[in-house]
Amino acid sequence: MKTITLDIAGALGNVISEADVNALRGEADAALDKLNNGTGAGNDFLGWVNLPSTMGINLIKDIEDTAEQLRKDCEVVVAIGIGGSYLGAKAVIEALSNSFDKNQKVIFAGQNIGEDYLHELQAYLADKKFGIIVISKSGTTTEPAIAFRLLKEQLEKQLGKAEASKRIVAITDAKKGALRQLATEEGYKTFVIDDNVGGRFSVLTPVGLLPIAVAGFDIKALVEGAKNMEEFTRNAGEYNTAELYAMTRNALYRAGKKIEILVNYNPKLHYLAEWWKQLYGESEGKDGKGIFPAAVDNSTDLHSMGQWIQEGERTIFETVISVEAPNNTVVIPTDEANLDGLNYIAGKRVDEVNKMAELGTRIAHIDGNVPNLRITIPALTEGYLGEILYFFEKACGISGYMLDVNPFNQPGVEAYKRNMFALLAKPGYEEATAAIQARLK
Amino acid sequence: MKTITLDIAGALGNVISEADVNALRGEADAALDKLNNGTGAGNDFLGWVNLPSTMGINLIKDIEDTAEQLRKDCEVVVAIGIGGSYLGAKAVIEALSNSFDKNQKVIFAGQNIGEDYLHELQAYLADKKFGIIVISKSGTTTEPAIAFRLLKEQLEKQLGKAEASKRIVAITDAKKGALRQLATEEGYKTFVIDDNVGGRFSVLTPVGLLPIAVAGFDIKALVEGAKNMEEFTRNAGEYNTAELYAMTRNALYRAGKKIEILVNYNPKLHYLAEWWKQLYGESEGKDGKGIFPAAVDNSTDLHSMGQWIQEGERTIFETVISVEAPNNTVVIPTDEANLDGLNYIAGKRVDEVNKMAELGTRIAHIDGNVPNLRITIPALTEGYLGEILYFFEKACGISGYMLDVNPFNQPGVEAYKRNMFALLAKPGYEEATAAIQARLK
Repeated sequence: MKTITLDIAGALGNVISEADVNALRGEADAALDKLNNGTGAGNDFLGWVNLPSTMGINLIKDIEDTAEQLRKDCEVVVAIGIGGSYLGAKAVIEALSNSFDKNQKVIFAGQNIGEDYLHELQAYLADKKFGIIVISKSGTTTEPAIAFRLLKEQLEKQLGKAEASKRIVAITDAKKGALRQLATEEGYKTFVIDDNVGGRFSVLTPVGLLPIAVAGFDIKALVEGAKNMEEFTRNAGEYNTAELYAMTRNALYRAGKKIEILVNYNPKLHYLAEWWKQLYGESEGKDGKGIFPAAVDNSTDLHSMGQWIQEGERTIFETVISVEAPNNTVVIPTDEANLDGLNYIAGKRVDEVNKMAELGTRIAHIDGNVPNLRITIPALTEGYLGEILYFFEKACGISGYMLDVNPFNQPGVEAYKRNMFALLAKPGYEEATAAIQARLK
Repeated sequence: MKTITLDIAGALGNVISEADVNALRGEADAALDKLNNGTGAGNDFLGWVNLPSTMGINLIKDIEDTAEQLRKDCEVVVAIGIGGSYLGAKAVIEALSNSFDKNQKVIFAGQNIGEDYLHELQAYLADKKFGIIVISKSGTTTEPAIAFRLLKEQLEKQLGKAEASKRIVAITDAKKGALRQLATEEGYKTFVIDDNVGGRFSVLTPVGLLPIAVAGFDIKALVEGAKNMEEFTRNAGEYNTAELYAMTRNALYRAGKKIEILVNYNPKLHYLAEWWKQLYGESEGKDGKGIFPAAVDNSTDLHSMGQWIQEGERTIFETVISVEAPNNTVVIPTDEANLDGLNYIAGKRVDEVNKMAELGTRIAHIDGNVPNLRITIPALTEGYLGEILYFFEKACGISGYMLDVNPFNQPGVEAYKRNMFALLAKPGYEEATAAIQARLK
């Protein structure tokens, strides 16, 4: 059976040696042990560790049935959420969707405060049968709360309150909070966000699974893939690729490689990289520490960021996600005139050229002192995506503990919110409002 | 008359002082002088400097007429190009398009080597009347050449060779190269890529203008905006914002701020940031130097990269593009129950909240030792986009000279290509092929 694999050979050389990586084995094992036994910082947020293997068949069935009903009732479903309540579903849906006939069954809102964005969304929905999945632990996070207030009103105007309630699904806290209370009062169908799973680790909960199912994809296979990876990465040892990824990137970081770019050669993986940036940036970027996570879409960005990566400051390494087999076949045709000089590759599949761009870049980067890690994913299917999602989660937990931070908090995210509430004179922020206004004078 | 403005007050404090910025005045003036007088490195690529003010009215008219014909003849036009032959048009079109009813008059290809991407594109075009704008100086760049070979064949099968030729426009070298020769033989309408304008500075040439015009936008206003900015930034002095941006970012870089994030609070600016990343990354990332350019879309990414930016390594600064006025109006409604607690902002426009998110973040970042530059663009219109495009180009030329690199070459981009050609056994690469194969054994 195929599975995703990790190759660190391209990372070993001038900057770090195999011995440098192996020297971190003890730290990685200790970190994994903290995850498995709940003995590390943030251990009240470890619900994701055994999530795939413990997910009830009834929950999956409930999500599938709910999705089926939404698909039947609605031309389009708006998934409202921000951060982890947005990026996981977006990543999986984009990876599996056609690049041109966009999967417009699910669209997203509440992930920004764009006035034009919301205006255009409301205009777009004006003549459509639509539904809403609203995702918020508290129900009061500003971005999704604004979007939900607007769209709920629009839907109720379209259908009346009673019918609208049948097209709204809330994913929220089990008992408390504004959205739970509203859902109870209005009779929305609900799913629970467990207390022990943080936003950026929530893609394999209803938060990610419901939008993915509404988009028409197989969430059973996604969870099954994650379950395989849970199994593969449970025990410490040289076959644990999550440990190996965490060890290698920490060795590189300690050797002065401060920026990691996640690289794809398939534009469908753009949002997987966005999801990864939240996962690693939010888990590790604290206490003045943490690799800066960035991403490129190649070969597009070889003609953009490629120059910097090849010859700029030597503070970068890369992790390439390589999709082994495309889902379709396109062969480069022969052309008699051959003015473009491409006949030497005529008869080859386009992907063969893509793979040589990838390999050629790998060699050029290694020569240019850009260490290269490579994750191979056999194909873009639900199962393998489930594997890679869980792989990155597990490796992130390990890596964060190795960096000696709490990988499961995000204290820095509050800073802008406090100021925003003060500036908007939110009730309860009176002192902060006075202070910030004095400061702005 | 309004114009884009630059505010560096938020960058002055712990890291650099106003005196540190002003100390670079002499360097900035010297760099500007090199641009104006063509006395610096790469001075055979300065055609962009006076481009807006010298662009012929006939050229604009020719582009507009060609675009009009393509719009009439085609449901969709595929713009084939990579790097600067892709990002400029994409940036402007996305900035001006509706977020949901996507402007599908222009789609892009040749900016990657995705087999699934090309398969899905060909399927999408199968039942559509389409045209092609193919953009390549040489006509042999691998990515666009593959896409063009495939789509040209498809179009000729649909229409026959003669009719297909009427729906293909080539933007290429004036005289030499594969695409020029083909265009002459087949009788394609053509536009010229001048020798003295590099790809990443080409958005205001037919390379960018034709796709933008096909998408339905006002290229006269775009060029007019750029012309204003050319005027504003021609002479050295304290009112030259391009100099000020270059001085400030170089001062920050020298003080250890190695990463610059371009920040927007309007998702339509996502691709403007991608264009900017190429412009600065490719111009400055060489000789082991250069600020690493990254980008975030806020407030989305405040819930993703926000944590790292607030509390990770203190090696980052930010340049915010703030759009002063949205093009539409959405007011937050009152809700009697007020369970979500938003009534304190009911009656406000959504953008007021967005602006407070921006200001709150600015304050939080300054407090967190993230220097903040702020570019205000009055609105997302063609004219102001023309201003900001030219502003960034001019500042990039100045900044690159201040960094003491040649801002107009990109030697590092060749590295992967050489390896790729060797791996694909391209004629002429026999020795390189043998060498790379020996190495891979």
